[in-house]
Amino acid sequence: MSKFWSPLAASLVPYVPGEQPKDKKYIKLNTNENPYPPSPNVLEAIKAAANEDLRLYPDPTCGELSSVVADYFGLKPNQVFLGNGSDEVLSFAFAAFFDPAKPVLFADITYSFYKVYAEFYGLKADLIPLDEQLRMPLALFNRENGGIVIPNPNAPTAMLIPVDEFRALLEQNADQVVIIDEAYIDFGGESAAKLVNDYPNVLVVQTLSKSRSLAGLRVGWALGSEELIDGLNRVKNSFNSYTIDRLALAGAIAAIKDEAYFQETAAKVNATRDAVAAELKSIGFHVTDSKANFVFISHPNVDAEAIFLQLREQGILVRYFKQPRIDRFLRVTIGTDEEMEAFLKAVRGIVAP
Amino acid sequence: MSKFWSPLAASLVPYVPGEQPKDKKYIKLNTNENPYPPSPNVLEAIKAAANEDLRLYPDPTCGELSSVVADYFGLKPNQVFLGNGSDEVLSFAFAAFFDPAKPVLFADITYSFYKVYAEFYGLKADLIPLDEQLRMPLALFNRENGGIVIPNPNAPTAMLIPVDEFRALLEQNADQVVIIDEAYIDFGGESAAKLVNDYPNVLVVQTLSKSRSLAGLRVGWALGSEELIDGLNRVKNSFNSYTIDRLALAGAIAAIKDEAYFQETAAKVNATRDAVAAELKSIGFHVTDSKANFVFISHPNVDAEAIFLQLREQGILVRYFKQPRIDRFLRVTIGTDEEMEAFLKAVRGIVAP
Repeated sequence: MSKFWSPLAASLVPYVPGEQPKDKKYIKLNTNENPYPPSPNVLEAIKAAANEDLRLYPDPTCGELSSVVADYFGLKPNQVFLGNGSDEVLSFAFAAFFDPAKPVLFADITYSFYKVYAEFYGLKADLIPLDEQLRMPLALFNRENGGIVIPNPNAPTAMLIPVDEFRALLEQNADQVVIIDEAYIDFGGESAAKLVNDYPNVLVVQTLSKSRSLAGLRVGWALGSEELIDGLNRVKNSFNSYTIDRLALAGAIAAIKDEAYFQETAAKVNATRDAVAAELKSIGFHVTDSKANFVFISHPNVDAEAIFLQLREQGILVRYFKQPRIDRFLRVTIGTDEEMEAFLKAVRGIVAP
Repeated sequence: MSKFWSPLAASLVPYVPGEQPKDKKYIKLNTNENPYPPSPNVLEAIKAAANEDLRLYPDPTCGELSSVVADYFGLKPNQVFLGNGSDEVLSFAFAAFFDPAKPVLFADITYSFYKVYAEFYGLKADLIPLDEQLRMPLALFNRENGGIVIPNPNAPTAMLIPVDEFRALLEQNADQVVIIDEAYIDFGGESAAKLVNDYPNVLVVQTLSKSRSLAGLRVGWALGSEELIDGLNRVKNSFNSYTIDRLALAGAIAAIKDEAYFQETAAKVNATRDAVAAELKSIGFHVTDSKANFVFISHPNVDAEAIFLQLREQGILVRYFKQPRIDRFLRVTIGTDEEMEAFLKAVRGIVAP
């Protein structure tokens, strides 16, 4: 605590990202990064953009990238908002749309940054409990609210809601914005992008970090009605006019255009995930039905934190959340087949030695 | 206006950056970009960083870049905060340090983003009038306040305050944070970085956009006491954990390390500026004493907006602020010698045809 901190800064409980230890080389299955490199076209586009034009500001409207994203989803450029990673997009969306006079709704077990954003912007939050099987209970979101945010698939549970099930929620909350956070949608889900022209209150948030192997580039976007995109731009332009640098703009455009590479690497991740899930079940794990690039697992006999610590000891990082309801679970990112073989071998040694 | 916007979003009056027209090729003297390209080492470093590691998140603590910046200023890494351009750093600083219970102080004629930040974070602002010669009246900042922000040199006036004159202000406001925004300090000023170890309440903000020719890369920093840097990190980690991408981190490190190139290009800009200022005076302009990479000029007989429009017609963009006290002035970025010759020729044709 410092006398120089504002009341806001003093009250915050910041988000804590997954650990990035540098003491030795780990098999990193703890921050949901893609095990495959980005498209070679992305690297070429970045190298080409590393030129003397870096002396000039980037396009603050991200015009070309907006058009490319819009085309990809069959939308108009003014239905696309770009940000410095989907975390920034989500933060702007909380500021732009959520009403401090009423509680914002999100699940009790979900992306833990939501409650941090709510505190940052002085919003009240009501937590909607996942059901006993950790499924998202959409019907429970039908109550007075100042906005709703739901990840699909949910994190860390990995479970997907079929997109058409959101229609009822969007209709019942026609005066509130419903954010569908699709960070992991490309690993087996169908995007709510198709709902954007039907519902002016839906905001679909995606990222290049996971399915396009570009966590290091920091580009995310929101898809929504023109009035929602206008609202996001008002907030962005009251915070930082130029949020995406020239290199990230160039890389992002190339990433979206290389559909074949994206499909191929996502399919590989999905195939590895399904094989790993089957193998984990065979040695007694409960494994949620994952449509993400990670699995969420628990073992009936062996303590999750013990597994986490022993894996760490053996040079394998996974994510353990020491919090109620999920303290018997581990979140394990899907790596390459070789990495997952090493993980499975280590896990077998721990749970069935 | 939209029913979906929060009261905050509805109330905002966003910042408007300088125009970036694409209808034809302009001589761009309107957004204070550096006319010289970035160091070749920067471009090489970025190309080397365009590799498969882009699949991984960047270091959220910006550890290596913090060390390089700290070394450059003779500070410790925990006295350095990095952000996605100095605009983001300033925004975080307003949130982290400024007290909503008391008015924040900044000049009536200054960087127009300050009042936007203040509105974004619900802060009251009292404007301190520049004196008749448009000089920053430091003594007038000695009044009750919830924080102070002063650019040095000021923009758009370009005038510098000798750094030691800030000592009295820092002592008189020992319980408030004083932000010194040094976006243009490298064009003839001395940085307040040397005050950081003496005053725990000073926050010095700089950017790579101007003197390192990297407006397109989006990297800025704050230098301050460890408790101020802690406060900025609390805010950042409640907004976006990973604000600087891997390419920008690599480019920024290379830029700071190439001191010779930086000194050479800054000296060229300064020499051109001084020659342009002398020439403008010879044709009747009033020119403030600039220690920035732009000049702030007015002509006793010719309307500034008329000059602005005629220059634009001739393919030369400068900045005109249609606001009280400075509506007879133009802000003209220093370009290459060739660009400034074209500018001077056009201006001569307008004011002394």
